[in-house]
Amino acid sequence: GAAPAVAQAQQQIRWRLASSFPKSLETVYGASEAFAKYVSDATGGKFVISVHPAGELVPAFGVVDAVQQGTIDCAHTAPYYFFGKDETFALDCTIPFGMTSRAMSAWMYEGNGMKLMREFYAQFNIVNFPCGNTGTQMGGWYRKEIKSVKDFEGLKMRIGGFGGRVLAKLGVVPQNIPAGEIYQALEKGTIDAAEWIGPYDDLRLGLHKVAKNYYFPAWWEGSTQFSLYINDKQWKGLSAEYKSIIEQASRAAHVTCQARYDGRNPAALKQLIAEGTKLSRFPKDFMDSAFKASREVYAELNEKNANWKKIYADYSRYLSDQVRWEAVAEGNYSQYLAAQKL
Amino acid sequence: GAAPAVAQAQQQIRWRLASSFPKSLETVYGASEAFAKYVSDATGGKFVISVHPAGELVPAFGVVDAVQQGTIDCAHTAPYYFFGKDETFALDCTIPFGMTSRAMSAWMYEGNGMKLMREFYAQFNIVNFPCGNTGTQMGGWYRKEIKSVKDFEGLKMRIGGFGGRVLAKLGVVPQNIPAGEIYQALEKGTIDAAEWIGPYDDLRLGLHKVAKNYYFPAWWEGSTQFSLYINDKQWKGLSAEYKSIIEQASRAAHVTCQARYDGRNPAALKQLIAEGTKLSRFPKDFMDSAFKASREVYAELNEKNANWKKIYADYSRYLSDQVRWEAVAEGNYSQYLAAQKL
Repeated sequence: GAAPAVAQAQQQIRWRLASSFPKSLETVYGASEAFAKYVSDATGGKFVISVHPAGELVPAFGVVDAVQQGTIDCAHTAPYYFFGKDETFALDCTIPFGMTSRAMSAWMYEGNGMKLMREFYAQFNIVNFPCGNTGTQMGGWYRKEIKSVKDFEGLKMRIGGFGGRVLAKLGVVPQNIPAGEIYQALEKGTIDAAEWIGPYDDLRLGLHKVAKNYYFPAWWEGSTQFSLYINDKQWKGLSAEYKSIIEQASRAAHVTCQARYDGRNPAALKQLIAEGTKLSRFPKDFMDSAFKASREVYAELNEKNANWKKIYADYSRYLSDQVRWEAVAEGNYSQYLAAQKL
Repeated sequence: GAAPAVAQAQQQIRWRLASSFPKSLETVYGASEAFAKYVSDATGGKFVISVHPAGELVPAFGVVDAVQQGTIDCAHTAPYYFFGKDETFALDCTIPFGMTSRAMSAWMYEGNGMKLMREFYAQFNIVNFPCGNTGTQMGGWYRKEIKSVKDFEGLKMRIGGFGGRVLAKLGVVPQNIPAGEIYQALEKGTIDAAEWIGPYDDLRLGLHKVAKNYYFPAWWEGSTQFSLYINDKQWKGLSAEYKSIIEQASRAAHVTCQARYDGRNPAALKQLIAEGTKLSRFPKDFMDSAFKASREVYAELNEKNANWKKIYADYSRYLSDQVRWEAVAEGNYSQYLAAQKL
């Protein structure tokens, strides 16, 4: 039952959130907007977070520095963009042959993932929250057909994050180009191939108009987790209620984002195929060479990077358990369904 | 930046939540506790929801009547328990050869699922919120080995929800028994087999001690969504802020619950095997016979039940699109990973 209302004081707060993504991507950019709306709604408009697309406050790849320095309060990004600062960022996002979406959420929320990443991010004055995932991505758009791993030698390819480091071992020349500039680079032939996300987002960028061959799966993005970064001083200044609301709004946006990708990709894939896209599976020798190259990269990193070594040890143990279990009930069920006429 | 604090009035509210599950299941019962904690934390303890295990306020299968009549404010349950009232309940939970976890969330949050189910629930004075999922379940525990579909003839089996109606077409005698009573029934031989959820929950019930043969996958629970039911008058009485907090807390608990299942199942499966469980895939002729029987059941329901027919039409179209897309990037990726040494 309801008791009489009690007067309560909660601060009015205005924060600015810098996204690493353009407004046109209702999926990932939409996740940051959903997050901000949830916070505002839960506080009756007292805690307002304005969301700004890449480039408006800071460049797409400048959000870590900006949150660290406190020039912005928070950011929404794909952490692997910052693997050049430290490869460990990628473990909060995706690594080649890494976690699927559900495995990643389990590691973050129920395993050691959140604890380990928070320790790592402390040096950047960042408090992190998972905030969206794409699921397994598509392997991108290629001007020429790919018949074997040899076709990657000398290929100039837009690829985000640290998949490029593995692809470089196979002769690829990787390029990290923000979303807004991929179409032109592929159209002009400055690059031979470009991977972005999946059917819905790729369709928004129009990549099928400048390269017809669409491959799967992106072994470098078995699922890509987006992260919300909050400046640690701003975080510490919040009341317990506001902290709880931020935490829950980020979890709500996390599930909303994955649902949006899953909901929108099927129709987009149909449209891409109707508009002339040629859909193919990557050749097995490419998958196998990449898997082997990824093991080499991880062995090198374990030697060189103590942050990486510590967190990767936990990540890879967890992944192995997840994959073994997923292959039992879930994997068998999905494969059975896929073979039926539905 | 922060502005001066503003006095605000929010009601003090106490609600009672009746779970259909025992306290011992930290996974699904834990989801309702997580939900209640999120609401309390976000409101500084002003909106308190006390969580009660099955039988404490009302029996496990009495929660719909209790919410409908307003004798309790809210409940947490598996909607398919109520398919005897109307088969349409199951579409908010799971049906044989139905949605996987991510597909179900996409249908509810981004497709027409929520809208359609809300229309249906209105006749029961219920406002529903997805609140947890198990992922694909295991096919249960069998005192004798299962070699073909023929071994199901005359089998007395504990099975929740409406998988039993399909199994009945294959000669099974289905029994709906609450969690707390399964162990004894299987031990005594009152039943020959029992399915519950998956490794972690099954281990808690100790089912492997009374039946050694453990099969997968539960084609009748490709994923099982739990639902939060709120009495519609109680819901309408909430402020906009409290409504938003409930909505977000349910989404947060939704992702927390699936992460908990995914996080805990792998070690539980290892333990079950170490303790003598014999893990096997269901025979293909059983899967195929069940798939065919499920189509017959759905055709019959489409003739008999207008609520079902309307919502199932949307559900099955959505499922077909989800399965086609899932088999492209996600399915190929997961299968490749499962074949590697990780």
